[in-house]
Amino acid sequence: MAKTKIDAYSLLKRIREEKPIVHHLTNWVTIYDCANVVKTLGASPVMAHAREEAAEMAAIASSLVLNIGTLTPDFVEAMKIAAKSANKKGIPVILDICGVGATRLRDDKSLELLNEVKIDIIKGNVSEIVRASGENIRTRGVDSTEVEQDMFTVAGWLTKRFNAVVVVTGKHDIIRNGIKSYVVKNGHPMMTHVVGTGCMAASVIGAFAAVTKDLAYAAASALTCFEIAAELAAKKAKGPASFKEAMFDCLFKLEEKTINKMQKVTA
Amino acid sequence: MAKTKIDAYSLLKRIREEKPIVHHLTNWVTIYDCANVVKTLGASPVMAHAREEAAEMAAIASSLVLNIGTLTPDFVEAMKIAAKSANKKGIPVILDICGVGATRLRDDKSLELLNEVKIDIIKGNVSEIVRASGENIRTRGVDSTEVEQDMFTVAGWLTKRFNAVVVVTGKHDIIRNGIKSYVVKNGHPMMTHVVGTGCMAASVIGAFAAVTKDLAYAAASALTCFEIAAELAAKKAKGPASFKEAMFDCLFKLEEKTINKMQKVTA
Amino acid sequence: MAKTKIDAYSLLKRIREEKPIVHHLTNWVTIYDCANVVKTLGASPVMAHAREEAAEMAAIASSLVLNIGTLTPDFVEAMKIAAKSANKKGIPVILDICGVGATRLRDDKSLELLNEVKIDIIKGNVSEIVRASGENIRTRGVDSTEVEQDMFTVAGWLTKRFNAVVVVTGKHDIIRNGIKSYVVKNGHPMMTHVVGTGCMAASVIGAFAAVTKDLAYAAASALTCFEIAAELAAKKAKGPASFKEAMFDCLFKLEEKTINKMQKVTA
Repeated sequence: MAKTKIDAYSLLKRIREEKPIVHHLTNWVTIYDCANVVKTLGASPVMAHAREEAAEMAAIASSLVLNIGTLTPDFVEAMKIAAKSANKKGIPVILDICGVGATRLRDDKSLELLNEVKIDIIKGNVSEIVRASGENIRTRGVDSTEVEQDMFTVAGWLTKRFNAVVVVTGKHDIIRNGIKSYVVKNGHPMMTHVVGTGCMAASVIGAFAAVTKDLAYAAASALTCFEIAAELAAKKAKGPASFKEAMFDCLFKLEEKTINKMQKVTA
Repeated sequence: MAKTKIDAYSLLKRIREEKPIVHHLTNWVTIYDCANVVKTLGASPVMAHAREEAAEMAAIASSLVLNIGTLTPDFVEAMKIAAKSANKKGIPVILDICGVGATRLRDDKSLELLNEVKIDIIKGNVSEIVRASGENIRTRGVDSTEVEQDMFTVAGWLTKRFNAVVVVTGKHDIIRNGIKSYVVKNGHPMMTHVVGTGCMAASVIGAFAAVTKDLAYAAASALTCFEIAAELAAKKAKGPASFKEAMFDCLFKLEEKTINKMQKVTA
Repeated sequence: MAKTKIDAYSLLKRIREEKPIVHHLTNWVTIYDCANVVKTLGASPVMAHAREEAAEMAAIASSLVLNIGTLTPDFVEAMKIAAKSANKKGIPVILDICGVGATRLRDDKSLELLNEVKIDIIKGNVSEIVRASGENIRTRGVDSTEVEQDMFTVAGWLTKRFNAVVVVTGKHDIIRNGIKSYVVKNGHPMMTHVVGTGCMAASVIGAFAAVTKDLAYAAASALTCFEIAAELAAKKAKGPASFKEAMFDCLFKLEEKTINKMQKVTA
């Protein structure tokens, strides 16, 4: 893959101007940060999980983010109601398969979601995406180039099977649809020391997916912006808590020239 | 309306001395910040939503804050149980009609609450208060003076209909009961870039309502203190996250002379 | 009791190396901070409350933290399922009896948990521990030496009755099992101005209990480290919010020599 230049800023600018509504049915641990990161980008977060309003709320939103981090069977039913409403309106649905592989409930319910509603973007880390693929693949150790090659293959399977953009987060993020691929190499290790950066990444993707039809490009742009903010924050941080605060501040003020200068994307 | 001087500090001082319990049935997104802002004022937050204890907890509290931001029908039933207990004990009940107008569930349930229990303070932003009024009024554009005049009228209707203090938050906050009115002109635009400032405002009002019978005065004092803290914080902030942190720090240390010097209240 | 030296760092080091999974069924107010403090120590937090996965998740964890701060009867049933699974696997179970005494539901449900599953560490503040003891003891006023003596007695009763380590948090923390006792005198008053420090303390104890069989030693080491971080943070803080941020940063970077120099423990 060759280094490429993406115009992530133009999507960020659209978010700031259009202030799209991003509806969430997400996990209870990171729900505040998911809402707040969307607000920090300039969009409007909504979190509404009652079955009685999930469909109506999804219908007025510009994207829908689902996250199974603290799922219950009832909650997943509300997710399906929201997703079916989003599907009908043509609103993109992002599914963060948070914790898949840890329990049978998570495996079963994520598969149910993938089969019963149209998921437009599937997002997970390496082990989650491998699990969701249903394959018994074992990534070939810690060498990131090899992991990357394996994950390209696995993401390709998932993309075909569910006709969805697949996002594999990690040191290098892999984004695939049926036609093209991106690798985002921005980010900072400090992100792994703060609870919720993965969940927030899904919400950030949700905000970007709300302003363009090209969902792979949206995901690549989203992760590029989020991770550049993390890199800027790491320079100022004294630990994970001040890092997190600075990450939000930097994301709020992120400028075109910074994004263009710092982005590390291949396609 | 003429500029007036309110003694917001004397209520803040009472909160710090008496440490009243402020019971919440609030939304899951901002629940931590609602609890923490009450604690930062010097009061004691309690969040208990089980039907089996909602009445008992309300009865030992000095005020009750309800917020329908992430409502479900079950949760609203628990709110009614808590509110009826508070009504019986003469404890003020604050209702934040968060998100009213977005879905039918929110419209129906907020009306149910207003009709089935005694709400002492109704709090919402401009569009929420307009919606709750049931009138098809359209505010006359963006000019804040005109919006303010319209909201005076709408708040007046609501006040009469539900025999409650009405608080309309916005650039200028309007507080009305049947007899008198306040407009609080403190605050900072940065508040709109942080999730939860509206919910927190309701909790701050709850803490002030816990230490005086004059609920309109309590609401005006609460918003004055909270928004002065926001103004102080904005001077130090590098973005919305450092702004939020500084707002809590400033609220914790807020002094009489600062409140008296910075307040912008008309009555 | 005589001043003693505990090697809290060696347990902290094990946490950082082994990254044990600490499963939580905790309260919805502080759930993020509970997860984040465990992550900051270097362990892996998991929060999973569905009955359908609580047992399975507990079985892959190295400790289980229960907190009844926002309990419902259903939620307590999920706690029992998780705890029975933990008991079977020999994984330590920590119960934070948050808010016991405030309502009958809390009294009943905490007793149910203590009677129906094996709780390895019971943690509460002075009034909660007194309530859980079922005794009508009234602590003899504000003098901390007298309170401390009384709490030693009460903690001793509880320890015998439930065959558990008892942790009483306060200005001085008391830790007892059937054989030995610790008093941890670290900490800072600013901790009482932030919502969640008590809940976080239980989670920190959970992380330390995941790496040693000596649960009293784990609890003493946990509180020592957490409270030293608080002392370091208080030096830099401008208020409770910047204090909290600094506390997380300091905990993340806590070093052996700092722990050994600052610890104030008697045994």
